[in-house]
Amino acid sequence: MWDVSGKNNTARTATAHAILRATKETLQAIKEGKVPKGDPLPVAKVAAVQAAKKTPDIIPYCHPLPLTHVGVEFVLHEDSIEVFVTTKTDYKTGVEMEALTAAAAAALTLYDMLKQIDMGMTIESIKLLEKTGGKSDFRLEETSSD
Amino acid sequence: MWDVSGKNNTARTATAHAILRATKETLQAIKEGKVPKGDPLPVAKVAAVQAAKKTPDIIPYCHPLPLTHVGVEFVLHEDSIEVFVTTKTDYKTGVEMEALTAAAAAALTLYDMLKQIDMGMTIESIKLLEKTGGKSDFRLEETSSD
Amino acid sequence: MWDVSGKNNTARTATAHAILRATKETLQAIKEGKVPKGDPLPVAKVAAVQAAKKTPDIIPYCHPLPLTHVGVEFVLHEDSIEVFVTTKTDYKTGVEMEALTAAAAAALTLYDMLKQIDMGMTIESIKLLEKTGGKSDFRLEETSSD
Amino acid sequence: MWDVSGKNNTARTATAHAILRATKETLQAIKEGKVPKGDPLPVAKVAAVQAAKKTPDIIPYCHPLPLTHVGVEFVLHEDSIEVFVTTKTDYKTGVEMEALTAAAAAALTLYDMLKQIDMGMTIESIKLLEKTGGKSDFRLEETSSD
Amino acid sequence: MWDVSGKNNTARTATAHAILRATKETLQAIKEGKVPKGDPLPVAKVAAVQAAKKTPDIIPYCHPLPLTHVGVEFVLHEDSIEVFVTTKTDYKTGVEMEALTAAAAAALTLYDMLKQIDMGMTIESIKLLEKTGGKSDFRLEETSSD
Amino acid sequence: MWDVSGKNNTARTATAHAILRATKETLQAIKEGKVPKGDPLPVAKVAAVQAAKKTPDIIPYCHPLPLTHVGVEFVLHEDSIEVFVTTKTDYKTGVEMEALTAAAAAALTLYDMLKQIDMGMTIESIKLLEKTGGKSDFRLEETSSD
Repeated sequence: MWDVSGKNNTARTATAHAILRATKETLQAIKEGKVPKGDPLPVAKVAAVQAAKKTPDIIPYCHPLPLTHVGVEFVLHEDSIEVFVTTKTDYKTGVEMEALTAAAAAALTLYDMLKQIDMGMTIESIKLLEKTGGKSDFRLEETSSD
Repeated sequence: MWDVSGKNNTARTATAHAILRATKETLQAIKEGKVPKGDPLPVAKVAAVQAAKKTPDIIPYCHPLPLTHVGVEFVLHEDSIEVFVTTKTDYKTGVEMEALTAAAAAALTLYDMLKQIDMGMTIESIKLLEKTGGKSDFRLEETSSD
Repeated sequence: MWDVSGKNNTARTATAHAILRATKETLQAIKEGKVPKGDPLPVAKVAAVQAAKKTPDIIPYCHPLPLTHVGVEFVLHEDSIEVFVTTKTDYKTGVEMEALTAAAAAALTLYDMLKQIDMGMTIESIKLLEKTGGKSDFRLEETSSD
Repeated sequence: MWDVSGKNNTARTATAHAILRATKETLQAIKEGKVPKGDPLPVAKVAAVQAAKKTPDIIPYCHPLPLTHVGVEFVLHEDSIEVFVTTKTDYKTGVEMEALTAAAAAALTLYDMLKQIDMGMTIESIKLLEKTGGKSDFRLEETSSD
Repeated sequence: MWDVSGKNNTARTATAHAILRATKETLQAIKEGKVPKGDPLPVAKVAAVQAAKKTPDIIPYCHPLPLTHVGVEFVLHEDSIEVFVTTKTDYKTGVEMEALTAAAAAALTLYDMLKQIDMGMTIESIKLLEKTGGKSDFRLEETSSD
Repeated sequence: MWDVSGKNNTARTATAHAILRATKETLQAIKEGKVPKGDPLPVAKVAAVQAAKKTPDIIPYCHPLPLTHVGVEFVLHEDSIEVFVTTKTDYKTGVEMEALTAAAAAALTLYDMLKQIDMGMTIESIKLLEKTGGKSDFRLEETSSD
């Protein structure tokens, strides 16, 4: 695990997203509250927050760090769900992996809640949209839209 | 968590995959052993196996189950890495989420090992290719190719 | 950890409950959707299911076992919330601790979601209501009512 | 997970307690060292300390934080065991949930160690007795006594 | 993770041990109840049982399996502590790693409880003494003695 | 868990090692890439890093702390493998247990990867070689050599 012992604490944020591509019927079922396993959004939100905290356990060389915030938002489109996750810390290393891992966990949990309706869903695009803090900021040029 | 108490144990398998889209330079660095953090493939393989076992902890309504096999393969293309994960059990419920979660963890770990070279990588396509056992088999019509 | 190697698998269930005693204002806030941290019930439900699965990690001498079902219900009273958790397995040992631990985790999570409104809430009564399977069944004489 | 990124580290403590109500015979068995599973107190103490550290994993929206102390005390009465847990940190957010979760884990572990003697025990009263640090201190008016 | 899907469940046991070499003064402190952190033996026993259950999380390619028993014994010598751990399952694969990992965790926990007295202690000999079940039994020729 | 709330953060390091004693044939198999389960060294390295991070979960009274570095090295001898682990933090308490636990996990993982070849391997010597930071430094007098 990379040596960050010489670094100072700085305020850091990251925003990642993921897209779950599904059928219109599946999206309709969510909007009408007809998913047999129950509303998938609150369950996926908890999964995202928990996965952000578990990131050093899931990604072998990630440093344990004091997450100060995990924000999770869902945007429902006609045939897809977009997940946005923002993470923050005030530490020696960034929170990109926490945001990406949380976005992936949310999309996987949506898949799990919805797979009785459709097994052919795809998680299409997990990517880092933006990070601030540390040596340099990063912002993805063209933001993926649905 | 869905009640599976009345179900019988049956042999079950699932195969999922994920694609990490990266630059040619990044793929070149892997092939030439020049990734600063070390060879990312064995680390991602361990991450995939561990994530398969942790699936009921990551995906809230997944049942704990006795995984009998997790197989992980990587295919290196010119500008992408494909991850294939196969999971097996002999139990009352399927191992689709285990395969999908393991594939996601492998792709995220590759991202983590490679992000010093390129932060713009995208995890493009996490999907279930095939499942056997249980009420019905499933096979994705057109297999995603790179 | 107690030796259960000689025992046969049998169908087992357990039902436990917990009561969170709160002010009428706090209950009102839940019913009107005015809790600053968001609706506490879905979060507490996920916490209960996850805690049921983590029981062998939380309670040192509990056996790991294949939970086949965790059911969680909340009953909102004027100044309290009752949590009911039912767990099932088909194994050599019972699921009482899983039901009790899940009920406790749900009540603690409700406390956490609501403590910005009131820190004086009390978790009043975590008890086993019923178990079936194993050497003998058990049913609590007078069921605690609110 | 609530955003605490703007807050400063301050010294914080919390004290919680729980009561396990049991029969006189059960208490007698503990005092005479006749519990079949062994002395329950040291096991419950370890469970409490471990649960305090696992709190962000058990309670979904709890922040991970650097616990600097977990103290656990048991008081044996004629027909009950009181658990007292004190937690400390020097961080941006409080350690109430850590104290409460540890107290609950200790009481649940006592139940598990003693349930071969009596399944009708009840965990009666998990509450926060006191917190210091942060925006305001808190002290429960009438301390629950056995 | 090795494919064991074709194997049958069979009764399996394993016994491992570890030796913590310490000074006579340290052993004396344990026997006289003068260890500042408290009696190390019950804490090490819980650590061993918990580590046995966590083995698939600690050892990457270990299968998750339903442990039916973990037994832990300590033998105090003049300048060492021997730890003996026996594990059992009725499953498709053995419990050697569970016994070895538990023995290591017990010895490490003893070290942690005693290091304020002496940092020069060594864990000397973690080995498998015996296994039964599966393709073939195993018994170490000369049992390590203190 | 020992109260460290009054202590200041200081830079701390620890180095531990472990020796896995094996047959010459087993060492030969590693060097020639003929281990049936695959190259054990990268797997053991990941296990060591993960175990360092999991130390407060494995060793009951270890404080959670922000590890800033885990370094793992293997030295292959004729009939043994030496594992060296270095850990770092900038915190109120030391990282000795993290280094020792990681060294043990690496040696146990090597055992697991190699046990199909030889079940009679022994983990011979887990010890702390050096620590810096905190009240006093420590350095083992005679370093164990193979």
